Amino acid sequence: MITVGIVGASGYAGGELVRILLGHPRARLVCASSRTHAGKEVGEVFPSLRGKTDLMYAELSPEEMACRCDIVFTAVPHGAAMPFAPAVRRACGKMIDLGADFRFGDAGVYESWYKVKHECAELIAESVYGLSELNRDLISRAWLVGNPGCYPTTVLLGLAPALAAGLADPLGIIIDAKSGVSGAGRKPGPAYHYPERNDSLTPYGIPAHRHTPEIEQELSELVGSQVVVTFIPHLVPMTRGMLSTIYASPASGKAVPDAGEVVDIYKEFYKDEYFVRILPPGRLPETSAVRGSNFCDIAISVDKRAGRLVIMAAIDNLVKGASGQAVQNMNIMFGLDERLGIDSMPLFP
Amino acid sequence: MITVGIVGASGYAGGELVRILLGHPRARLVCASSRTHAGKEVGEVFPSLRGKTDLMYAELSPEEMACRCDIVFTAVPHGAAMPFAPAVRRACGKMIDLGADFRFGDAGVYESWYKVKHECAELIAESVYGLSELNRDLISRAWLVGNPGCYPTTVLLGLAPALAAGLADPLGIIIDAKSGVSGAGRKPGPAYHYPERNDSLTPYGIPAHRHTPEIEQELSELVGSQVVVTFIPHLVPMTRGMLSTIYASPASGKAVPDAGEVVDIYKEFYKDEYFVRILPPGRLPETSAVRGSNFCDIAISVDKRAGRLVIMAAIDNLVKGASGQAVQNMNIMFGLDERLGIDSMPLFP
Amino acid sequence: MITVGIVGASGYAGGELVRILLGHPRARLVCASSRTHAGKEVGEVFPSLRGKTDLMYAELSPEEMACRCDIVFTAVPHGAAMPFAPAVRRACGKMIDLGADFRFGDAGVYESWYKVKHECAELIAESVYGLSELNRDLISRAWLVGNPGCYPTTVLLGLAPALAAGLADPLGIIIDAKSGVSGAGRKPGPAYHYPERNDSLTPYGIPAHRHTPEIEQELSELVGSQVVVTFIPHLVPMTRGMLSTIYASPASGKAVPDAGEVVDIYKEFYKDEYFVRILPPGRLPETSAVRGSNFCDIAISVDKRAGRLVIMAAIDNLVKGASGQAVQNMNIMFGLDERLGIDSMPLFP
Amino acid sequence: MITVGIVGASGYAGGELVRILLGHPRARLVCASSRTHAGKEVGEVFPSLRGKTDLMYAELSPEEMACRCDIVFTAVPHGAAMPFAPAVRRACGKMIDLGADFRFGDAGVYESWYKVKHECAELIAESVYGLSELNRDLISRAWLVGNPGCYPTTVLLGLAPALAAGLADPLGIIIDAKSGVSGAGRKPGPAYHYPERNDSLTPYGIPAHRHTPEIEQELSELVGSQVVVTFIPHLVPMTRGMLSTIYASPASGKAVPDAGEVVDIYKEFYKDEYFVRILPPGRLPETSAVRGSNFCDIAISVDKRAGRLVIMAAIDNLVKGASGQAVQNMNIMFGLDERLGIDSMPLFP
Repeated sequence: MITVGIVGASGYAGGELVRILLGHPRARLVCASSRTHAGKEVGEVFPSLRGKTDLMYAELSPEEMACRCDIVFTAVPHGAAMPFAPAVRRACGKMIDLGADFRFGDAGVYESWYKVKHECAELIAESVYGLSELNRDLISRAWLVGNPGCYPTTVLLGLAPALAAGLADPLGIIIDAKSGVSGAGRKPGPAYHYPERNDSLTPYGIPAHRHTPEIEQELSELVGSQVVVTFIPHLVPMTRGMLSTIYASPASGKAVPDAGEVVDIYKEFYKDEYFVRILPPGRLPETSAVRGSNFCDIAISVDKRAGRLVIMAAIDNLVKGASGQAVQNMNIMFGLDERLGIDSMPLFP
Repeated sequence: MITVGIVGASGYAGGELVRILLGHPRARLVCASSRTHAGKEVGEVFPSLRGKTDLMYAELSPEEMACRCDIVFTAVPHGAAMPFAPAVRRACGKMIDLGADFRFGDAGVYESWYKVKHECAELIAESVYGLSELNRDLISRAWLVGNPGCYPTTVLLGLAPALAAGLADPLGIIIDAKSGVSGAGRKPGPAYHYPERNDSLTPYGIPAHRHTPEIEQELSELVGSQVVVTFIPHLVPMTRGMLSTIYASPASGKAVPDAGEVVDIYKEFYKDEYFVRILPPGRLPETSAVRGSNFCDIAISVDKRAGRLVIMAAIDNLVKGASGQAVQNMNIMFGLDERLGIDSMPLFP
Repeated sequence: MITVGIVGASGYAGGELVRILLGHPRARLVCASSRTHAGKEVGEVFPSLRGKTDLMYAELSPEEMACRCDIVFTAVPHGAAMPFAPAVRRACGKMIDLGADFRFGDAGVYESWYKVKHECAELIAESVYGLSELNRDLISRAWLVGNPGCYPTTVLLGLAPALAAGLADPLGIIIDAKSGVSGAGRKPGPAYHYPERNDSLTPYGIPAHRHTPEIEQELSELVGSQVVVTFIPHLVPMTRGMLSTIYASPASGKAVPDAGEVVDIYKEFYKDEYFVRILPPGRLPETSAVRGSNFCDIAISVDKRAGRLVIMAAIDNLVKGASGQAVQNMNIMFGLDERLGIDSMPLFP
Repeated sequence: MITVGIVGASGYAGGELVRILLGHPRARLVCASSRTHAGKEVGEVFPSLRGKTDLMYAELSPEEMACRCDIVFTAVPHGAAMPFAPAVRRACGKMIDLGADFRFGDAGVYESWYKVKHECAELIAESVYGLSELNRDLISRAWLVGNPGCYPTTVLLGLAPALAAGLADPLGIIIDAKSGVSGAGRKPGPAYHYPERNDSLTPYGIPAHRHTPEIEQELSELVGSQVVVTFIPHLVPMTRGMLSTIYASPASGKAVPDAGEVVDIYKEFYKDEYFVRILPPGRLPETSAVRGSNFCDIAISVDKRAGRLVIMAAIDNLVKGASGQAVQNMNIMFGLDERLGIDSMPLFP
């Protein structure tokens, strides 16, 4: 059994890790660290888990976590994961950070967008960006993984086949993204207060949401040159679920292809990927169809009149957008079947 | 492997059975019958299940179902399950009806509340009321089970310990119940139209919801004399979830006990029951804590001032209130571990 | 024009007062006091009101408020309204408190439930309980009104005709109440965090919500003897709206009447009341039918089998349950048409 | 008093017209026509309006409507308004169609998108497109107005100032729009069934929603040359509210301006428009801020990195997006103050 620890286990991503790992046949959750809830039972902080575990929250040092666990998941605000990486490295363990601390190849980019100093920039070179489907080989050899943000997961899975096939112009990409409120975390605040969020829609994080540089870094990597995107997220009155609508022009000089052709290219690209479902032409994704699951549903529409490719990608922001993909990466890092523990059916309706 | 068939597999209870059974380690779903969707793939009618099964809907006769399946689940409107029972009996199979056709010991009661003639009243005597925790022995020996309604499940689990311990007066029980909208089924209608149901609460089914006689039959059975209740259901703007608030007076001549004492009695009563969670005094149930799971969370409050016992029981109406309990009953009927296939964690948030 | 001031004008009840008073043909809003938002424009704190007023929030002393305003509304946490009453009295002004400070005839009851010392208990005798329909004469002569809580408004309007007609036994009343989340105010907190409140129902405030003594005081007043009730509130995933389901036994020795008879008694009782709508037998209230309006919709059901009277009363908790009724009381206190400023149509859907 | 009739008065747009017109100081609603509800009281079909009117639904011929009413509003599916126009013309009355029948200058465009033959194409030339702020003069002289669709209203109000100022390239416009479910009307259907719509987001109407040609016709009119747009609508789990996020490139050869500059241009453009509110730089629109009102809130963001202008426009789809704007047009056609009857405050929260 793989012994597992979670730092930040009382937030939504942390709680989702607990939920998934308690059902994982090869993992044993041994440490649940939480500053705010140390001393409480997990089942008190997540009544849904009452009776499923008698684990207690503790506040553990990086050394203690590294010492007790084969792998440490950090699900904490940016900056707070950094102290754990050196400790895990010394203990020859593995670590997956669900925050932004190890997503960037360039510490300067991280620092300019997140406004904190990177305290272990020397480890960045050893870190791998954990988009499972696109970076599987690197992930399988990594000890340190920067788990992708929820928005970048939809955008990269959505665009990779089109860019690889030269279908889309890497310039001119516009991403209009919509997220459920759980993506903002468990901490209450005016923007997430039920009476104000219910039955109301709003854009936010404009003009420059912090997932922008992450999207651009990985898209640039995919196409081999600098990509700049327009990215506008919106907050939708629902708990879970994320849908990105991605607008691209056809690669210059090319005619815009038929939706059916593009769908075939996508199906071929993802033909071995269990967690990516390409919808047939004419079908459109709904976030309810992926709720509680690690699936990413992708649909293609071609606007022949205006000459544009429209790609829609839907995930559960807490699963494929965070904790599910983190466990998928853990499975890859330990040479396990990638689906272990994250193969539950979506909950519909 | 147990071969399983579902009649009415495109409704919510049917779809939930498909979802659960596809993940059941000892069951193989071989028939999904649907009048309206015959010829379509399951994944077309439930996009959430796309890629998880290549089963197609068919419209099968009772004989075909009975012949191909070790057990047949019927998840159809009342009246429509009747033709299946004789066929299953002839084939020496088992059957669980999620509707009302086999819940009543007295065909006359059924006929007067449901306004249809019972076509196989002779089988009623062989049918067992499938409240797993209270009728386990009978269920284990039955070939035909009438699976409880969602409301009765909360009420019976909520009241059984108090009645068994003589804590509550069987006369004077008032049940104020609240249900998510999925309980009304998948068929669209004005009362379930999103703009009218969203952000609005309403009582319904008054003065006499059809779950009343079912509740009364089983409570009368529990206490050994005729029980009449006041039962008022409400429709709540949420998809899944049901909470019944049950008001009872203390048994005559007795003082109203402390909440802690009642909680202890409940814990003792359900000490071997995996799916019933008794909350500690002071904690209150939330439907989100059981979402997508087979748990029933029960809390006790004692109103010392007015001299009343208040019992609150929460379930997911589609799981413990329908398909989860049906699979629990299947497990009991086949001598399996009761938790098989229905032990997934609740989905929170 | 009546000059009006609001203390606590940035909360939900305060904001609703601003919204209503800006459209009131005989009132001029001159002071909006807010500790947290002093110095900001009203339209910044309530973007809905942008462009409708250029009023700024200020933090004003009781003396300043009393001096500038013919009437002061206090919409602040309990305890915080007390300092304003003596100042308003000295200035010979009028005051309506939307909190609990002036609802109780007995300072001891207030202090034991609200856990604060009453600082101007001598004014309690001059204060009138502001349930407009039941106390109109007293209100018209009062300078100080304790505006009712939202729950008590539904319960008192719902029970008054039955108790007056001797239809219901004042003992044995059970109130199962359901409220939208705006009733909890504008301050964010875990229980009102969108992802946890959405799609989830929970009872709360048990065993003894602070509206209990208020309900009991007024019911006791109505029947002339001490009444004790069981009152269980629930939080419903909706923004506005409140529905109380009230269970009563028929007065002892009497048979339970027909619903039609009871409806007739209710219609007669409220025949001159514009804001109370008695639904015909068989129709049930929906909170959406009163959304944004000052109406209270009441329906009657008679459970002949169990011998019980069930009364359902629905309001918008922020309007008839708070700010709308406060303005109704202001209209009464100034001898105006009671409907002025609060006669807008409900917003459906 | 202006006598008014509504055809299709039991749908959402029709009901909203009833709600608004009952409160209009210069209008008297005399006819409410409905095929499905003829013979019922308005208050039975809209319980929110119970007690506010004793009007009954009737099914009236075009001639009867034209004869009794100074103005006829048609709020019916496309095609069904056509028979009313000739009758109204003969009676020298006025007519506002809330559907698509009189929005298009070219019957061929209408017929190719709506798949019906236009039965009174000769009247198209007399019809005016009723976007109040942009076409006020023409509307004031018209007898027949084609009231804009909800999506086009947001797009046209959002883009008009930028196009007029030459800020945006008319080519390359992408509109990502989000609508509450009431926009789909009152008729129940699977896509609007509460359990499937709640907590789930989906694009729809792709690849070519019928509002596309309407948007393109009016944008082409504004810029004087053919404009083609990409328009992707999404269904959001909320009842009312619409937000369009509009992406445009700066006019060729021009640098992308600062957000502040663009805001100033917008403020100037709409300086006399009561119902258009331009948010200050940095503020973003929320649909809750316009709920139940005739306002359109517009915000500007400039993506300096990618060189794009992003315009966000929010309305209540049933008010400014349908019935509110229709009454605004009626006010213009009769020379009244444009705000009469539609000046109610937004309902927040």
